[in-house]
Amino acid sequence: MIKVGIIGSTGYAGAEIVRLLLQHRYTEIVWYGSRSYVDKKYYEVFSNMFQIVEDKCLDDNMEELADRVDVIFTATPQGLCASLVNEEILNKVKIIDLSADFRIKDVGIYEKWYNIEHKSPQFIGEAVYGLCEINREQVKKARLVANPGCYPTCTTLSIAPLLKEKVIRPDTIIVDAKSGTSGAGRGAKVNNLFCEVNENIKAYGVATHRHTPEIEEQLSYAAGESVMINFTPHLVPMNRGILVTAYASLAKTVTYDEIKAIYDKYYDKETFVRVLDKDVCPETRWVEGSNYVDVNFKIDERTNRIIMMGAMDNLVKGAAGQAVQNMNIMFGLEEKEGLMQVPMFP
Amino acid sequence: MIKVGIIGSTGYAGAEIVRLLLQHRYTEIVWYGSRSYVDKKYYEVFSNMFQIVEDKCLDDNMEELADRVDVIFTATPQGLCASLVNEEILNKVKIIDLSADFRIKDVGIYEKWYNIEHKSPQFIGEAVYGLCEINREQVKKARLVANPGCYPTCTTLSIAPLLKEKVIRPDTIIVDAKSGTSGAGRGAKVNNLFCEVNENIKAYGVATHRHTPEIEEQLSYAAGESVMINFTPHLVPMNRGILVTAYASLAKTVTYDEIKAIYDKYYDKETFVRVLDKDVCPETRWVEGSNYVDVNFKIDERTNRIIMMGAMDNLVKGAAGQAVQNMNIMFGLEEKEGLMQVPMFP
Amino acid sequence: MIKVGIIGSTGYAGAEIVRLLLQHRYTEIVWYGSRSYVDKKYYEVFSNMFQIVEDKCLDDNMEELADRVDVIFTATPQGLCASLVNEEILNKVKIIDLSADFRIKDVGIYEKWYNIEHKSPQFIGEAVYGLCEINREQVKKARLVANPGCYPTCTTLSIAPLLKEKVIRPDTIIVDAKSGTSGAGRGAKVNNLFCEVNENIKAYGVATHRHTPEIEEQLSYAAGESVMINFTPHLVPMNRGILVTAYASLAKTVTYDEIKAIYDKYYDKETFVRVLDKDVCPETRWVEGSNYVDVNFKIDERTNRIIMMGAMDNLVKGAAGQAVQNMNIMFGLEEKEGLMQVPMFP
Amino acid sequence: MIKVGIIGSTGYAGAEIVRLLLQHRYTEIVWYGSRSYVDKKYYEVFSNMFQIVEDKCLDDNMEELADRVDVIFTATPQGLCASLVNEEILNKVKIIDLSADFRIKDVGIYEKWYNIEHKSPQFIGEAVYGLCEINREQVKKARLVANPGCYPTCTTLSIAPLLKEKVIRPDTIIVDAKSGTSGAGRGAKVNNLFCEVNENIKAYGVATHRHTPEIEEQLSYAAGESVMINFTPHLVPMNRGILVTAYASLAKTVTYDEIKAIYDKYYDKETFVRVLDKDVCPETRWVEGSNYVDVNFKIDERTNRIIMMGAMDNLVKGAAGQAVQNMNIMFGLEEKEGLMQVPMFP
Repeated sequence: MIKVGIIGSTGYAGAEIVRLLLQHRYTEIVWYGSRSYVDKKYYEVFSNMFQIVEDKCLDDNMEELADRVDVIFTATPQGLCASLVNEEILNKVKIIDLSADFRIKDVGIYEKWYNIEHKSPQFIGEAVYGLCEINREQVKKARLVANPGCYPTCTTLSIAPLLKEKVIRPDTIIVDAKSGTSGAGRGAKVNNLFCEVNENIKAYGVATHRHTPEIEEQLSYAAGESVMINFTPHLVPMNRGILVTAYASLAKTVTYDEIKAIYDKYYDKETFVRVLDKDVCPETRWVEGSNYVDVNFKIDERTNRIIMMGAMDNLVKGAAGQAVQNMNIMFGLEEKEGLMQVPMFP
Repeated sequence: MIKVGIIGSTGYAGAEIVRLLLQHRYTEIVWYGSRSYVDKKYYEVFSNMFQIVEDKCLDDNMEELADRVDVIFTATPQGLCASLVNEEILNKVKIIDLSADFRIKDVGIYEKWYNIEHKSPQFIGEAVYGLCEINREQVKKARLVANPGCYPTCTTLSIAPLLKEKVIRPDTIIVDAKSGTSGAGRGAKVNNLFCEVNENIKAYGVATHRHTPEIEEQLSYAAGESVMINFTPHLVPMNRGILVTAYASLAKTVTYDEIKAIYDKYYDKETFVRVLDKDVCPETRWVEGSNYVDVNFKIDERTNRIIMMGAMDNLVKGAAGQAVQNMNIMFGLEEKEGLMQVPMFP
Repeated sequence: MIKVGIIGSTGYAGAEIVRLLLQHRYTEIVWYGSRSYVDKKYYEVFSNMFQIVEDKCLDDNMEELADRVDVIFTATPQGLCASLVNEEILNKVKIIDLSADFRIKDVGIYEKWYNIEHKSPQFIGEAVYGLCEINREQVKKARLVANPGCYPTCTTLSIAPLLKEKVIRPDTIIVDAKSGTSGAGRGAKVNNLFCEVNENIKAYGVATHRHTPEIEEQLSYAAGESVMINFTPHLVPMNRGILVTAYASLAKTVTYDEIKAIYDKYYDKETFVRVLDKDVCPETRWVEGSNYVDVNFKIDERTNRIIMMGAMDNLVKGAAGQAVQNMNIMFGLEEKEGLMQVPMFP
Repeated sequence: MIKVGIIGSTGYAGAEIVRLLLQHRYTEIVWYGSRSYVDKKYYEVFSNMFQIVEDKCLDDNMEELADRVDVIFTATPQGLCASLVNEEILNKVKIIDLSADFRIKDVGIYEKWYNIEHKSPQFIGEAVYGLCEINREQVKKARLVANPGCYPTCTTLSIAPLLKEKVIRPDTIIVDAKSGTSGAGRGAKVNNLFCEVNENIKAYGVATHRHTPEIEEQLSYAAGESVMINFTPHLVPMNRGILVTAYASLAKTVTYDEIKAIYDKYYDKETFVRVLDKDVCPETRWVEGSNYVDVNFKIDERTNRIIMMGAMDNLVKGAAGQAVQNMNIMFGLEEKEGLMQVPMFP
């Protein structure tokens, strides 16, 4: 059994790691970390775990954790993982960090967009960006995986194949994204109260959202050149789900079949990326609770643009599910182990 | 592998049977029945099943099904199962009927409340009411299981122990229940449109709901005498979940510990019934997607009444999950096989 | 013009007073009180007021307010109004208190249920309980009106006529109520976050909710004897609306027409209480944004009980609307002035 | 009093016309048209109207209506108004058509996108496109007003000023729009059931939505040249509200103040268009139930693009409210008469 410690187990992403690992055949959670709820029974924080988890919440202690577990998930605010990790710890234990600390290779960009000083930039280089479908081979050997952000995961998987095959113009990409409210976390803020979110839709972080440089870095790798995009996230009155609607101008004349062939080339053998049938739009309801990403596209011949769409569960493929997928890869398990939940509808 | 046929696989309950059985180790669905969608790919009706189910929908044909499968689930409108079943079929195949056709032992009561003629009353006697925690032994030997209604399951499990132990007065029971909208089915009706249900709560079927006699019959068995109740269901703007709030006068002075001991006596060894800690109210969010029923109670010394509460997922323990639980029992599998989904939150 | 000051104008009830008074022909709001947002523009707290309200929020100062306005609405936590009011103030200005401070005549009961010391019990006697349809005459002369709670308003209007006419047994009343989330206020609490409330229903305050003694007092007046009830509120994933489903045993054999005649006797001339047609259940969607209370009933001959139902908008008739209605009465205006909003659907 | 007839009064837009006109000082509704509910009391279709509207629904009869009323609102499916209108009728009565029949000047484009034959193309020329803020003068003299679509209203008001002032490049416009579900109408379709819409977001009509040519026509007028755009609508799990997020490349270097000055130039004197403060994003919750459109923008210097945003209530400014605004203009009333509802929050 793989021994697991979770730092930040009482946020929504942390709780989702728990849900998934409880149904994983080869893991055992031995540390439910939560600074806010130390000594409280985990099921008192999340009553769905009543009679399932008997553990109490423990404080953050990465040193001790490194001695007791095989892998640590950090589902914590930006900066925490970077402030705790060191060479000794990385020699003892694998770390999958769900924060943004090790996602961006250029520390200057990280510090500018996150407005935070990076406490261990020496590990940025070795950290592997854990977008499994793209960096699978590097993940296998990684000590430290930077688990991708929710928007970057959905956006990159929707767009990257067309950039790689040079059928879209990199300087024309616009990403309009929509997310359920669990993405905003479990902090008690007026703006996330039921009555504030319900019956409302809004854009936020327009032209300033922190996932922008992360997406741009990944798309740049795909394009083989520096890519700058517009990225606008929106808050949707639902619990889970991310939908990406992305636009780009076509670099050449293409047919439906040609584009379909490109997506198939990249995703045909991927369990978790489903390229939908012609004219079927991705919808978040069809992936809820699962690790799937549904992608599709539509060519608009009138404007010579292509609309690329992706839908996934922000807490699964956008956070905990991908983290488990990375863990599976790192430990030599079958990649889909514990992740074959059928999407729950309705 | 147990070969399974589903009649009515494109309703919400039918789809939930599919979701559960796809994650069951010992079953294979060989017949996706749906009169409305014959010849359509199942995943075109429910896109969550894309790349998971390749089958097409088939027409209802219980004769042929009986030759091809080991068990038939009928998730169909009232009357259909009763019109199709016969001795020959029952000799070949086990039937788990999710409709009300075989739940009520008195055919006159059935015909009065459902306003329908029963087409095969000769099988009512042998049909076993599949409330697993109560009728487990009979289910083991049953050819025909009447899978309980959603409200009756939650209500009976919340109240029956106190009736059995004679601590509440049977003539004082009032059941006020609340259900998510999936309970209303997938039929295209104005009253179930998003804008009609959203931002609204209403009672319906007041003093006339068809689950009333079913609940009364089960409570009567528990009480050992004829019980008549008030039952008022309400429609809640959410997808899944049933909450029962039931009231009764106490037959004698009791303490919290005494009542707790009664619930524990009946449910201590039950996997799927969770008696919550003191003063914790059941909430539907904590059971979503799972087969659990959470129950608890509160004594009101001022009025000498007790408030009994139960929460469950109407599509799982209230329909498909309990049906699979019955199947497990009928086929000698471990009862919780394929049913240990951790509740999904949020 | 009636000059109005609002203490607590940045809660949901306070904001609703603002919304209503902005559409009232004879009032002018001169004081937007909000301790939390002093000096902030009111429209920065509630952007719907952009270009409508230019005022800044002001601190609580009842002394100064008493000199500047004709009426003060206090939409504040329990205890605040009682701590501020005094004889001098009451001689200068009318006060409509939306908190519970002056609703309950027995200060001991208030202090027990609210767990708070009452700071000005000397005014409890003269305070008029502002349930307009019942206490209209006293409201006319009042200096201090205790604006009723949301649940007590809906419950009392649904039940009182039958108690007054002695057709139901006072010792059998059970009130099962459901409320939208705006009733929980705008405080930043985890339990009221979108993801916690959405897709969930729960009971809360079972057998302990503070509105219980308030309801009992009002029902006792109607019955002419002391009434004790069970009251269970539930939280519903919607913004606005309260639904009351109340149960009682009939004291004698009655027909539909007899009960209908009783309701009509009390409400025929009331603008804001609508007795629905036979078999039509009140629904919160039909009163949203308006001051209406829809009531109806169903006799269950099987159990000799009657189910009484009421629906209203908790922020209007359950708070701000009734407060304005009281103001209209106190100032000799037509009672419905500024309150004839047509319910908004959907 | 202006006598009003409504054809299609039992759809959501029709019902909203009723709601608004009941609160209008100078109108009287004398014809509640509804082919589906002929002879049914209007309040039986919409119970919010109980004790407010006593009329029965009447069949469509434009001939008779023309003799009895001063203005007809047609809130009906595409094609109906065009099939009923004729010269004689237009000589007797003013018509405000909420369908798309007379919005598009090029009948070929209409017939292609709507896949319908236009039955009275001879009136397209004289019909005035009723986007009040832009075509106010022509509306004054119109016999026939084509009330704009919801998406086109919000999009045009958000973008047109910048096109007119030539600060954005017309060939780079991308419109990503999000709508509440009332925009889908009250027809009983599986796709609009509560459980299908709730907890979901999806794009629809990608590159094919019928509002595309309407938007393009209006933007072309603003630009003074032919404009082609990408338009992608999304369905959001809420009742009301439209949010437009539009993107365009800047045609020259501009500052925040310059763009702000342009919006102010066009909207400073407009009651219903609110240009928000810097960095405040429009949100649908702040306009709900009102005729306001909130607009704002954000310059992204990194990409040299501008993000233009607009929010409004699709049933008010996007349908019924704008129709009433047009009526006010046509009849020489103050434009905001009956339309000063304060947005309702929450």
